[in-house]
This record gives sequence, structure tokens and C-alpha cells, in this order.
Amino acid sequence: MLNQNVLVTGSTGLIGRHVVTSLVQAGWSVHGCARSLRDPPKGDVRWHRANLLCADDRSRLLDAVRPCTIVHCAWETEHGAYWTSPQNLNWVGSSLALAREARERGAVRFVGVGSCAEYTWGGDKPSSAGQAPLESTTLYGIAKDATRRVLESYAGQSGLSFAWARVFMLYGAGEHPHRFVASLARALMRGESARMSSGRAIRDFLDARDVGAAIAAVVASPLTGAIDIGSGIPISLRQVGESLARLAGKRELLAVGALPDRGDAAMTVAADVTRLSCEVRFSPSIPLEQGLMDALNYWRMEASR
Amino acid sequence: MLNQNVLVTGSTGLIGRHVVTSLVQAGWSVHGCARSLRDPPKGDVRWHRANLLCADDRSRLLDAVRPCTIVHCAWETEHGAYWTSPQNLNWVGSSLALAREARERGAVRFVGVGSCAEYTWGGDKPSSAGQAPLESTTLYGIAKDATRRVLESYAGQSGLSFAWARVFMLYGAGEHPHRFVASLARALMRGESARMSSGRAIRDFLDARDVGAAIAAVVASPLTGAIDIGSGIPISLRQVGESLARLAGKRELLAVGALPDRGDAAMTVAADVTRLSCEVRFSPSIPLEQGLMDALNYWRMEASR
Repeated sequence: MLNQNVLVTGSTGLIGRHVVTSLVQAGWSVHGCARSLRDPPKGDVRWHRANLLCADDRSRLLDAVRPCTIVHCAWETEHGAYWTSPQNLNWVGSSLALAREARERGAVRFVGVGSCAEYTWGGDKPSSAGQAPLESTTLYGIAKDATRRVLESYAGQSGLSFAWARVFMLYGAGEHPHRFVASLARALMRGESARMSSGRAIRDFLDARDVGAAIAAVVASPLTGAIDIGSGIPISLRQVGESLARLAGKRELLAVGALPDRGDAAMTVAADVTRLSCEVRFSPSIPLEQGLMDALNYWRMEASR
Repeated sequence: MLNQNVLVTGSTGLIGRHVVTSLVQAGWSVHGCARSLRDPPKGDVRWHRANLLCADDRSRLLDAVRPCTIVHCAWETEHGAYWTSPQNLNWVGSSLALAREARERGAVRFVGVGSCAEYTWGGDKPSSAGQAPLESTTLYGIAKDATRRVLESYAGQSGLSFAWARVFMLYGAGEHPHRFVASLARALMRGESARMSSGRAIRDFLDARDVGAAIAAVVASPLTGAIDIGSGIPISLRQVGESLARLAGKRELLAVGALPDRGDAAMTVAADVTRLSCEVRFSPSIPLEQGLMDALNYWRMEASR
């Protein structure tokens, strides 16, 4: 599979940039695209400017790249807004069109990026690929799941190899400062109070670099269908917060319970990494403590700018 | 609700034309649109030529009509091909975009046309809104269902009133000559052998005029969610064939078992008309025998041309 053209959409995003890095390291001929190209990741990548929601841009991009494989990371991701943004509707349509147009130009594999938000987050029940039904209650989760359903059917009849990487919680350098790990790390590095909820909710955290590496491993594999991307280690938000405060040497700044719990959030959202570990044969290389330390260092640099 | 602008997409199709007729009769201000406008239905309708798969056409149409209500009948319907056509992907995207763009221009209600193909057609189990899960195995059924899932979520958060009319088997003047009722009626009227399968499968048949009237009744109601559109009277294909042959006075032409049974077809696909009769308060006005007689007369006229 090496030395073949792979197109990574959304390739300047928190996930896409690390997918690009991992694919380049593995020897792929990587094309990246994004709406704007300020500060693209380094490395041996050919960059294209394209708005995938625009049919003309999409055609031009596919004609230019003629990808053998697509890794579709692009989607509406504006922090906070993406759960309910009407742009989710346009991303469904554009993602389906992208797959069809790529297939009709000869692409043989399509890996889409899904989300743990596709699973039913019901009260106290655990949500994971192994157990949870796919009845999301958010427009974002429903739109991602609908995209997967249609693409899986289209792929089956058109001979496209199709996999769907369902990403759980991720964190890392460059993430939005209001996201969970970033907000705490940033406050700690600024010497401010690091406010969080009770932190009782259980989640699965994976460093964005490992998320990118895991998706790149899925791309290189012949696997099809949905694959949870996570660490496989459920952990409470409180534990993550306490680790950050301890690593920063500023336990006194962690303010557990200073923010209200989100009443609609499920108690447990845990990835089932059976396929990722046994079939993709991928194991994360960045333990949580190291990833959190790197996040703290990133925000220390940002704070000193 | 009367005298308000309603836009009917696919309004020259087998369903759309009757939706238009019923809405005009009920006093709505009806706008029709279709890709081509040869032979549009008669009546007090303003016609627009538009390809809804084209973003520019869609915007132009919505700007011209400014609909209060949309009845979305348009979809890929090429006989035989629509089950697997890649155009299903484009119709998902265009339908979502249509709803969003209409809502953002002030539309308050959207009624989409779904299909019994959305239900799981599993072997001998009955498929109906009351019982069957939504796990279609066809691209067409999956695409329709995915569209409904996303629109229902979008409608809920954007204040759009949204209903989904799941149409079961329909027949009537102008239908494709290879469809079940048409193929038999046409052969009988030409004095040819009317070949069919064993006809053991159970379906729900409704005259296209009643389908149109039922959807118009859904449009005028404040109901939301999915509503099966059918007669509520399950009948075997064999019984329908025998009725046609008897009504035509040509029992000797009916060749039951001359065609193979479709191995993948479910034994029973029956509509659950509880919502249609109790909530929409709609009852079909054309009994099967009358509808079949009209179909025979239509094909007699066609045969004598």
C-alpha cells in the first residue's frame, strides 16, 4: 500500500495533522487539504486549499490528487457549536459526495472519522462499541452516524473498502483552550484556579498524536466497518484533573466541583478497543501521564508568549 | 393553514402529482417543481423548473417561492435502478440542504416522503411501523432512513415542524410499465400472458391518488414523526393478480408462477395505519377493486393508442 496517494481532509485539524504525520512517516504519498493553509504541519506533504462543502472545490481537489485512499477528518468542529450546528447537515451531504466522487475517480479505500457521540449516552449506562446502541441524541452524533450508515451501504455495493474510526476523548497541543484538558492545563500554567465539575464522569482519553497514529494504522489495514479509537482505559475526569495538578506541582489550584456537572452527560463513555488492539494491532505509545505533561508544557510555552 | 405557500418537489412524479392535486383542492397556494416540465398536472399551480441536486437551482427556487411548507417528494426513482443508484447519496445531501435552506428562509413545516424500504425486511417476519426495526439492507432504504434521522434532529432544534410519510406499495395511472400492477394490467389489456411470481408475498397496496391525498392530509395536520402511508389491508400479490385478471375478464391470461420469486424479498411488508387513521384521520377513498379497474382502463387506453 505504500507510496500510494492518500488524501487527508481536515488535515490541519487536531486529528488530521497527526494522521498526516503518521502517514508520511509510514511512507505514504500524502496530500493534505484545508480551507485555509496558515500553519500547516511540517513534513513531506502536498497541500491543497479547498472548501469541501463546495462541489467545485471538491471536484478540482479530486482531479488534482486522484487519491487511492481518502482519510476524511474534515467536519464542523467549532468548539461548543458543533453539537447543534446546522453545518452538520452540509457535512453529511459533502462527505457522501466526496466518497462517491472519489470512488468514481478510482479511489479504493475510504476511512471516515466518527465519534463516540454516535453511541447512545443513556444516563448511567456505559457507552461503548461493545454494548451501546447507535441512537445518539445530538445532531452531531446523528449526522456522523447517518453518514456512516449510507457510506457503509454504498461501499458494499461499489467495491469501496470502507472503515469508520470512532474517536473518543482526545487532547493535545493546539486544542481549543476551552476543551477539558486544555482548560485545566492552561489555568494551571497561568497560576489561575483550574475549575472543573465534580469530575465523576468516566471517559476514555487518548493523546491526539496516538489518535492520528491509530487512524493511520486503520488506513494501512484492510479492515472495514466501525473501529473505536481510544486508550481502552476508562478514567474519571477527576483523576485526569488531579494528574494534571500533580504533574504541574500545583495541587492547590485544582478546584474540583467549582463548575456544575452537565446533567445530560452520561456517567460512562468507554471505548471498546478490541478491534483496535486485536485486529489493527495498534497500541498507544503515549501514556496518559506523558501526554498530560506534554499538554502542560505546551500551555506553559503559550503562557510565556 | 390554507392559502399559504407550499412547495411540492418532484411534483410531476407518481406521488407528487397527486399531492399537488389534493393540496390545490384543499385551497393551498401550490408551487410545483421538477427537472423538466413536460406534461405537468393541470390545475392552479405555479410551476418552477429546478434540479434540486444543484445548489444554485435550489437557492433560486427557494428565493422565488419562499415556501411556508415543503413537501419533499423528489428522489431518485428510476425503476429498478433506484435501489442501488449512487444518486441516493446525492439525494441525502440535497434533501438535508433543502430543509436547512428552507428553514433559514422562514419555512415552518417539512414533510418528507419515506418508504417502507426503510424497515428491516427480514425473511418471514412482518415489516411495519409497529414492529419492524429500521435496519434496511438496501442503499435506497438506508439513505431515506438516514435523511429522516438527521432531519428529525435538525427539526427538533431549529423549530421546524417535521413529518415523514412512509409510503408502502402504490400503483396508478402513469406508473412505470414494469411495476407490478402496471405490468399485469398492461399485458392483460394487450391480450398477452400476464406473468407473475408465485405471488405468495404479502404487501400493502394503495392507489397513488389516495397516497397523494394521505400525504396532503399529513401536510395539513400538525403531526410530527414517521407515519406509515398505506391501506392497512395486507394482501398477497397473487390476490392482486387474480383481481386484475378477473376485472379484465381474462383469467386465462394470468400466469401465476411464470416468474421466479425474489429470494431476498420479505414475505410480509404491511403498513401500520394507526397514526394515519387515528391521528391524521385519513381513510382511503378508492377501494382496491376500483383502483385496479382504473389501472386497467388506463392501460386499455394506452394499448389502443
